[in-house]
Amino acid sequence: MRRGILIAAVVFAFTSLSHGQAASKLAERLGYPADAKLLIVHADDLGMAHSVNAATIKAFETGLVNSGSVMVPCPWFPEIAAYSVSHPEADLGLHLTLTSEWRLYRWGPVLPADRVPSLLGPDGYLHRTESEAAARVDPRHVEAEIRAQIERARAFGLRITHLDSHMGTLYQNEALFRVFLRVARENRLPVRISRDWLGRARFIPASLGPDDVVIDRIIEINNDVPPENWAAFYAEAIRSIRPGVTEIVIHLAYDDAEMRAATVKHSGWGAGWRQRDFDFFTGDAFRRLLREHNVRLITWAEVGKLIRAPRR
Amino acid sequence: MRRGILIAAVVFAFTSLSHGQAASKLAERLGYPADAKLLIVHADDLGMAHSVNAATIKAFETGLVNSGSVMVPCPWFPEIAAYSVSHPEADLGLHLTLTSEWRLYRWGPVLPADRVPSLLGPDGYLHRTESEAAARVDPRHVEAEIRAQIERARAFGLRITHLDSHMGTLYQNEALFRVFLRVARENRLPVRISRDWLGRARFIPASLGPDDVVIDRIIEINNDVPPENWAAFYAEAIRSIRPGVTEIVIHLAYDDAEMRAATVKHSGWGAGWRQRDFDFFTGDAFRRLLREHNVRLITWAEVGKLIRAPRR
Repeated sequence: MRRGILIAAVVFAFTSLSHGQAASKLAERLGYPADAKLLIVHADDLGMAHSVNAATIKAFETGLVNSGSVMVPCPWFPEIAAYSVSHPEADLGLHLTLTSEWRLYRWGPVLPADRVPSLLGPDGYLHRTESEAAARVDPRHVEAEIRAQIERARAFGLRITHLDSHMGTLYQNEALFRVFLRVARENRLPVRISRDWLGRARFIPASLGPDDVVIDRIIEINNDVPPENWAAFYAEAIRSIRPGVTEIVIHLAYDDAEMRAATVKHSGWGAGWRQRDFDFFTGDAFRRLLREHNVRLITWAEVGKLIRAPRR
Repeated sequence: MRRGILIAAVVFAFTSLSHGQAASKLAERLGYPADAKLLIVHADDLGMAHSVNAATIKAFETGLVNSGSVMVPCPWFPEIAAYSVSHPEADLGLHLTLTSEWRLYRWGPVLPADRVPSLLGPDGYLHRTESEAAARVDPRHVEAEIRAQIERARAFGLRITHLDSHMGTLYQNEALFRVFLRVARENRLPVRISRDWLGRARFIPASLGPDDVVIDRIIEINNDVPPENWAAFYAEAIRSIRPGVTEIVIHLAYDDAEMRAATVKHSGWGAGWRQRDFDFFTGDAFRRLLREHNVRLITWAEVGKLIRAPRR
């Protein structure tokens, strides 16, 4: 027992250290100066609703939002897949989806429900929350489903540059995280993971290997920020960006009838939230902040080259 | 051969006749004077999109649109099911759904896809058109799926008053029509069928029995009517209503971003079409026409009593 704990502690320290070193060199490994401040501005939830797709595509056109991830099981997936086909330069990953969180607007898995029964709630759709999902899913069903999401995305012509997890379900426990990493490695795709997430749970650093790319920091707004402080939160976040690779995770949509109905009576990530994100990240203030603080935008496609190319 | 044709002709004539007689008495059977002009104003496609649900609910509130049917496999089904629970007086049937016709916004069956594989197109969603569906589906899969749609609707608290068929798929051939009637009879629900449809195909009158309720006439606008003639088409239709039971089948939604994207590059039933239907059927001109021509609104729930009660 003692010996087991000791070994685990050593592995933990070693893994943290090795990722710490690797990450401090991430900018250089990507071909930038060691002190370069590199940023991925990443919109989540593409495919979830038309309003999300329309606002995100509009934001992509500004050049200020330059990456996003797609929910394959959602009804508007074909719209964003068609965009990907006509815009092969777009940096699109998959927002692997194991939950269907809204009250009045729902979806199920890509695989036939009877092949992945543990993914379904009693109403026949995916579970409502990441914690319900994590408690109930069979990791084998999860693995089959996320492989099917990747396969359907590719069948629709989407060129996947990275993977992340809607509502963080795949980070909820070690079994799910290991499935996530296994599928990502087989597909040679980077996953959303940052050095500041390594301490969240022991299994996170313990599951990572030397070839997994870990970015430096992930910034995301939360329910505690009142709407009037939205721009100030993001401005401060951008002023605080340090050398290395940072990702800002945002949620874009218009504050319109579709989005208001989809997100009704839900805590957070509502139509107003997404409109505020849209307004800030397509605005001049954001563009100025990037310039003033020498922040350079990069994509997951660039980060992913470190996996697909031999390590330097 | 000759004899077979003769028998078929006699059966056809007899069936037409018996339904002709029954229908001429339908107003009386429903407890109205024989010359009463009775009208169901019926909105199709509920659950298909938020815009459809919102416009239809608004139209129900005017009292001028008084019936509708729901697409259970669609993502916004839970929204209209919740409305049904909070408005148990609403006259809602199922718009049994075997097609997913739009380009960028799609859905699959209620049953696990591998239990009803013939219902799926190569992209993993339901077939795009009623003719593709009719040519490819296995009637056993259709029967299982429409039973599952009824079951899911009831599980969500929807009180089903009638059945019809999205894009008319279940009227495309005899095998499908017989499945449709069998499931409807078992559930003691009336189906959308009118005397003026009996001549469309021999199997239609041949499949009907003396206990099936056949209304007198169904009115539906079509692609040939230019937008500027929309109100004139409907006004003339209402002026021409004869005694008996007529259904006007309409498609309501707002001409908004969601609906425009959902119906993009599709011939007919677009966002503008649905807004025009909404404008006419919630407007004063329609209310005046009903009054001037002594047209009285009735529901499918009333018609269905003829099936659920012993025949007089």
